[in-house]
Amino acid sequence: MKKATIRNRLSELRKRLKELPMDTLWILQPDNRRYLSGFKAADTLFTESSGSLLITEKRALLVTDSRYTLEAEREAVDFDVVTIRKSLVESLPSILSDLGTKHLGFEEEYVPWEVHRRVLQGMRKVASRPKLSPTKGLIEDMREVKDADEVRALQASSDLMSGILAVVIPGMHPGRTEVEIAWEIEGLAREGGAESLAFPSIVASGPNSALPHATPTTRKIRLGEPITLDVGVRVDGYCCDMTRTLFLGEPKREIRKIYGIVRQAQLAALEKVVPGAETTSIDATARDIIRNAGFGPYFGHSLGHGVGLQAHERPRLGPEKPVKIKEGMVVTVEPGIYVPRKGGVRLEQMVLVTPKGPRILTTDPHFHEFA
Amino acid sequence: MKKATIRNRLSELRKRLKELPMDTLWILQPDNRRYLSGFKAADTLFTESSGSLLITEKRALLVTDSRYTLEAEREAVDFDVVTIRKSLVESLPSILSDLGTKHLGFEEEYVPWEVHRRVLQGMRKVASRPKLSPTKGLIEDMREVKDADEVRALQASSDLMSGILAVVIPGMHPGRTEVEIAWEIEGLAREGGAESLAFPSIVASGPNSALPHATPTTRKIRLGEPITLDVGVRVDGYCCDMTRTLFLGEPKREIRKIYGIVRQAQLAALEKVVPGAETTSIDATARDIIRNAGFGPYFGHSLGHGVGLQAHERPRLGPEKPVKIKEGMVVTVEPGIYVPRKGGVRLEQMVLVTPKGPRILTTDPHFHEFA
Repeated sequence: MKKATIRNRLSELRKRLKELPMDTLWILQPDNRRYLSGFKAADTLFTESSGSLLITEKRALLVTDSRYTLEAEREAVDFDVVTIRKSLVESLPSILSDLGTKHLGFEEEYVPWEVHRRVLQGMRKVASRPKLSPTKGLIEDMREVKDADEVRALQASSDLMSGILAVVIPGMHPGRTEVEIAWEIEGLAREGGAESLAFPSIVASGPNSALPHATPTTRKIRLGEPITLDVGVRVDGYCCDMTRTLFLGEPKREIRKIYGIVRQAQLAALEKVVPGAETTSIDATARDIIRNAGFGPYFGHSLGHGVGLQAHERPRLGPEKPVKIKEGMVVTVEPGIYVPRKGGVRLEQMVLVTPKGPRILTTDPHFHEFA
Repeated sequence: MKKATIRNRLSELRKRLKELPMDTLWILQPDNRRYLSGFKAADTLFTESSGSLLITEKRALLVTDSRYTLEAEREAVDFDVVTIRKSLVESLPSILSDLGTKHLGFEEEYVPWEVHRRVLQGMRKVASRPKLSPTKGLIEDMREVKDADEVRALQASSDLMSGILAVVIPGMHPGRTEVEIAWEIEGLAREGGAESLAFPSIVASGPNSALPHATPTTRKIRLGEPITLDVGVRVDGYCCDMTRTLFLGEPKREIRKIYGIVRQAQLAALEKVVPGAETTSIDATARDIIRNAGFGPYFGHSLGHGVGLQAHERPRLGPEKPVKIKEGMVVTVEPGIYVPRKGGVRLEQMVLVTPKGPRILTTDPHFHEFA
């Protein structure tokens, strides 16, 4: 990311801060933190933060501990790095005093109940008696629409993933195991310069393909059965998320039929991914096709989701809570049908919303067409 | 894990539940969930749970969604799997009505503030008007002392990791990059049957070794400089965590001196890891040696931590909050000295507490002795 890009985000947040009752924002979610500051550290555990941002109209602090000081100083653009010796909860009162905070906003989706309780206790010690109030989706809203730097990174991760599948898929033959294939994908991801996988690869064959979130096993892949690859890499922080269901040789008639329905649902839904469309109506387009074909109960998840610094982020494309699609969003369209014990099919594309319609970022061409 | 082992844990929890004011416990932390039920799914994101346990004196439910139903039924011992179509927050009121819950306990360290707020709202709809109260460390307390199955898994992951270092360290030569070495470790981990890495490997050379939590870079390793490997694998759910600082050729005098101090601090602290000892006094043993040698400000983290299903768990071996060491705990002892821009040394052993003293699980022998 260019420094100017990150600087723009901080300015945009400060504009939004003016409209809020708070004078200080506390940002601890790692992707939100990275988005606003450039500080790349992940949190090893939910309960072990590698840092927090505290942002006011004038000041921008990155509060961390000695393990991360040097990285924070290297990476964080325009933030003053404050190294604390005790926990954030213990250090916060004096930091807030220094900032002159009267009203602190926290991310209600990420702050654990206990941390909130202890911060509230600590704030009673601050002379100015600041208030503590929840915020929701403040940075996530900003992250929904991607800037040019982000689109480049998302295209780069999608291109790397497509390139990997171009190597892996022709090398799939009966007798190779799911874990072998997963492992080959991970190897190629690293060699190709990925920061990491975007999520643990799913390689699910035969009956395992009926588990939407299967973990790869030592099962050997066979002729004619569905083999679902749900895979993604992370490049410069940004994720790719794509799914293909493949066959070595001709599948049984029922699976061919399911594949055709899923693909039809996907193509129909993709056409609807345009600025101004509602997420619920895009979901309904795919869901109606699957339901009308008699497989409604076998499509239990949402149609898609946003992708960016996180493999799953806003907006959700599901049957509930309509959100208007905007130019610059990057979302997945991934209908699926899963018949317990028999097998399943899921097809997932990741697309950029443009005024001309969706631009497919996951260009891997491995789709089947059955006569 | 044997089914009987998991069954014992549920019985033990129910014993503890009798002493509490709650009649139902809600467990959503993924490792706690796995510990009690055998259900192995991870949570893809903190905000995307793959399931929750609801435990009463008589009933044990695993509440999940259709993505995980089959795995849950396969893996969870003695739990009834309940598949919900809406979110847990929306489904909870009717489940609690069915269970006859009057007082629900939640994990205060893991439930986000927002989820708590929405659950509380939902519970107002339950006729019996159940109470909602925090619990802290209920399962983590049980997890502190390892059972025989867990010790076996921890030894297996440590043995795999030692075996990997026995291959990787002799192959390290000037000119190889940090990421190449990290990648080789990951490859051997997979080939060796690890479920995953326990955490992203740290391979930090030269000035990077002064960053306790460095991310591997494309920097080439050189003769004479410190190269810190902080690495671990996960086998059958259980983590190994070990650190070695290595040198190719003779390091400079100051680094040799630092290495000697860290190793002395480690050996002295290890002797104190016996049943009945206090964590703070073990930490002080190492910290005093480092401080007396004049490097106090360069040892900014705790001496160690428990290891189990998580790479970092209770107890913490730090300068604050004394905890009594018990037989069956597995903890790390990992002093370090980090001199900014120059380099650092960290040495980490993972040990099982036995009545005869600590049994070292991380048997890799790559320690230097400088005359």
